[in-house]
Amino acid sequence: MTSHSHLPASLARLGEFGLIQEIQRRFGRTDRSVVKGIGDDTAIVNINAKTSLLLTTDLLAEDIHFDRQIHTCEQIGYRAAVANLSDIAAMGGTPLYALVALAIPPGYSPRDICNVYAGLMQAFKHAGVSLLGGDTSAAMHGLIISITLIGRAQPNAALRRDRARIGDHLYVTGTLGDARAGLQILKTCKSLKKQKRLRKDERFLVQRHLRPTPRIALGLHLAERQRATAALDISDGLSGDVAHLCQQSKVGALIMANAIPLSPALQAYAAKSRQDARALALSGGEDFELIFTSPRSSRDELARVARRLAVKITCVGEIKPPSFGIQLKHPDGSYRKVIKTSYDHFSA
Amino acid sequence: MTSHSHLPASLARLGEFGLIQEIQRRFGRTDRSVVKGIGDDTAIVNINAKTSLLLTTDLLAEDIHFDRQIHTCEQIGYRAAVANLSDIAAMGGTPLYALVALAIPPGYSPRDICNVYAGLMQAFKHAGVSLLGGDTSAAMHGLIISITLIGRAQPNAALRRDRARIGDHLYVTGTLGDARAGLQILKTCKSLKKQKRLRKDERFLVQRHLRPTPRIALGLHLAERQRATAALDISDGLSGDVAHLCQQSKVGALIMANAIPLSPALQAYAAKSRQDARALALSGGEDFELIFTSPRSSRDELARVARRLAVKITCVGEIKPPSFGIQLKHPDGSYRKVIKTSYDHFSA
Repeated sequence: MTSHSHLPASLARLGEFGLIQEIQRRFGRTDRSVVKGIGDDTAIVNINAKTSLLLTTDLLAEDIHFDRQIHTCEQIGYRAAVANLSDIAAMGGTPLYALVALAIPPGYSPRDICNVYAGLMQAFKHAGVSLLGGDTSAAMHGLIISITLIGRAQPNAALRRDRARIGDHLYVTGTLGDARAGLQILKTCKSLKKQKRLRKDERFLVQRHLRPTPRIALGLHLAERQRATAALDISDGLSGDVAHLCQQSKVGALIMANAIPLSPALQAYAAKSRQDARALALSGGEDFELIFTSPRSSRDELARVARRLAVKITCVGEIKPPSFGIQLKHPDGSYRKVIKTSYDHFSA
Repeated sequence: MTSHSHLPASLARLGEFGLIQEIQRRFGRTDRSVVKGIGDDTAIVNINAKTSLLLTTDLLAEDIHFDRQIHTCEQIGYRAAVANLSDIAAMGGTPLYALVALAIPPGYSPRDICNVYAGLMQAFKHAGVSLLGGDTSAAMHGLIISITLIGRAQPNAALRRDRARIGDHLYVTGTLGDARAGLQILKTCKSLKKQKRLRKDERFLVQRHLRPTPRIALGLHLAERQRATAALDISDGLSGDVAHLCQQSKVGALIMANAIPLSPALQAYAAKSRQDARALALSGGEDFELIFTSPRSSRDELARVARRLAVKITCVGEIKPPSFGIQLKHPDGSYRKVIKTSYDHFSA
């Protein structure tokens, strides 16, 4: 259910999320069991008084989301599974069942396809997910991996995007921008031989791209203890995903640039490649870390949880009124609006 | 979850269902809630004592499953929805929720994509299905439609493929082969102008291809009253799908050729185009009618149900011991083995 901005130019005039909104407006009729349909990391349906199901689907296409020149089949599968697991994590749910549909073009051997599944199942088994089946078809060009993941949440406890409140602190997990840097590094060394010659820092960043960690245990804790008012996973980059949270919650946000957690490896890589490490963190997608908002009063408990689950949790800002928009405070004290689009949706 | 035989040549040596079996063998680990994983029309999971969920996913690829030269976007969407609804019907379930993932190549306009959704939702709304959301991505070549449909069944009441018993009668709904003939006709008249000049018989067959009917009410009745021992929908053609049923149930079957229900339109078309109408019925896929087995004692009740639900139900044969294999009895009294493959899986 991650909202991809990878759309053909012919659809671009509908806007990044315009197509999804148009579909929701026209076809998003839901019955009473549907708590949340289109528009969050997952849909939420109440199967009965005791059980809410979380449902998400993600489609990954060759040469758009992955590149066989730089990814092995196993890596492609692993990352596809994590993209879906991360959606369930962002809702505070327990992932349970996966369905996988593949469209397979010429040029893939049975071993390649089994390797895609091996990668998928490595991530799924670690998260306790059962493969329920799927569909396998031919494709004319490019492998397509379509995954549906189903999880469980306690009724009314799922973490949504639309409940951040003014004054809440804005948190992120882990360090940001690493996955983008790792992808950049992989693109410059397409052969395995070259990959083996990478420095330790670079290997760390590559691993952050290839083996992202879905934050399932933290999501569950935040949902069960009701410690987060809103949450989502970082698939489009910090600034883009904070914008989604603000849009859905009808609030603004202040992001403190010097609070954004950067790994030493990213800082070294950014210095060496003459890039701005914070820009990589703000725009780099697919870190699959969580963004969440929490009342100020939860601060001490979050510090304890971070230690117990061995997850780095960093406060990077604060939720503001809608009129504030989304602003980045630079280390020199200056402010910059980070996202100018989408404001008309919630500034009224 | 319909098992497609549309696989690239590079995968063909794994056999039609070998790839699915290999994946099941290696990765089909399931927890206790999973009643049935890979291998039926849908998976079955027991969410709690009162509710079983049915889950199915189907992926349709342009130029493999549909052809923009002969199908409108709305027709593509409608047929994609029915392919999934039919899987739930074959399990005797109530379809509830759909997730849709699209990979959109250049050349599709926003209107085209909305028309795909309009077709999908026409079939889904008629069946009471809510659209829960989905994912939209670019593709390099060819539209991909991946649908996951979730339904509900009473615990232990879902119609499976693996419970046919020797001596059961073998039934089919509707008339068979029409969809294949309709597709043949569409391929010969690619312009809408030519389509308008079709005879009434031909238009009937084209409609049977474009607007197949999922047999949801009948499936529900068979499941609730426990009138069928096994069931599946016809997606690969009568002979192929009877083979799937026999393989899963570890039985053989006798099919009476002269009992196969043929529409007058198909008979007229077959005569005119010098084809064997029964061969079209035996091999023609995507009729989305049901095949089911039922004890002899249910015969009179099935006749009453057929009248009440206005669904044609025809007895076309009988379940036999595994050693019988699958044989077709011709009108002249001769017998012919219909499927030679797959027997080693269950003759032991």
